[in-house]
Amino acid sequence: MQTREPLRRSDCPISYALDLFGDKWTLLIIRDMLFKQKQRYGQFAESEEKISTNILADRLARLEGEELVTKEADPENGRQVVYALTSKGLDLAPMLIEMILWSAKYDRHSAADRTFIRKAMSDRGQLVKDVKSRARG
Amino acid sequence: MQTREPLRRSDCPISYALDLFGDKWTLLIIRDMLFKQKQRYGQFAESEEKISTNILADRLARLEGEELVTKEADPENGRQVVYALTSKGLDLAPMLIEMILWSAKYDRHSAADRTFIRKAMSDRGQLVKDVKSRARG
Repeated sequence: MQTREPLRRSDCPISYALDLFGDKWTLLIIRDMLFKQKQRYGQFAESEEKISTNILADRLARLEGEELVTKEADPENGRQVVYALTSKGLDLAPMLIEMILWSAKYDRHSAADRTFIRKAMSDRGQLVKDVKSRARG
Repeated sequence: MQTREPLRRSDCPISYALDLFGDKWTLLIIRDMLFKQKQRYGQFAESEEKISTNILADRLARLEGEELVTKEADPENGRQVVYALTSKGLDLAPMLIEMILWSAKYDRHSAADRTFIRKAMSDRGQLVKDVKSRARG
């Protein structure tokens, strides 16, 4: 059985963050919610990186447990659920934008959107607001 | 045998970053070099989170392979080595600072330094410069 509660390794803020999303998949789910307005299990499963269903289910449950994400009945289909970012989840926007800027600078094959990068470099504060506002829906 | 070259999952900038440091340990080594001026294997091994020696050796080799870190003979002891961040490694400072701000906001037990947080909120550009300059030694 997988442990849902990660062991707290120290009170270091970087270690705390990595205890929550220090893996290859969690931030891709946050990315899908924050930048691509995805909110359904099936939409996350469709992403290009091909997350496996057991990892996806595990990470969504952890994100819910850590209060980065809430889960509610889908208004369009009560038997399904939709996920939404909490303030704690939305507040990862600045960190993810810095991650995008770093990759855009160092990865030759980066698919980072040029308009997005220009906006991040010229007015990051406004971009953070826009991203969070769109993600709130 | 562990694979050193991660499989590239997509051209997404967030996925690229996670292919390099999407695990619980790599960014702790970067943290030690960037914020604590550590440069020796034994210093990384001493960190509070108690990284195991095989993970440490693996992550250092990957960081070197991905050109985030260089390895050179220790000027104080030619049989040992010292590690230093490249520009690519130093440029993770803004992302790590955002990670620290996020954890300081949401982790009640955070050991994040208050002076550091104040500086990050009031003049992040200057803080990034200071951090990189100190890490360059």
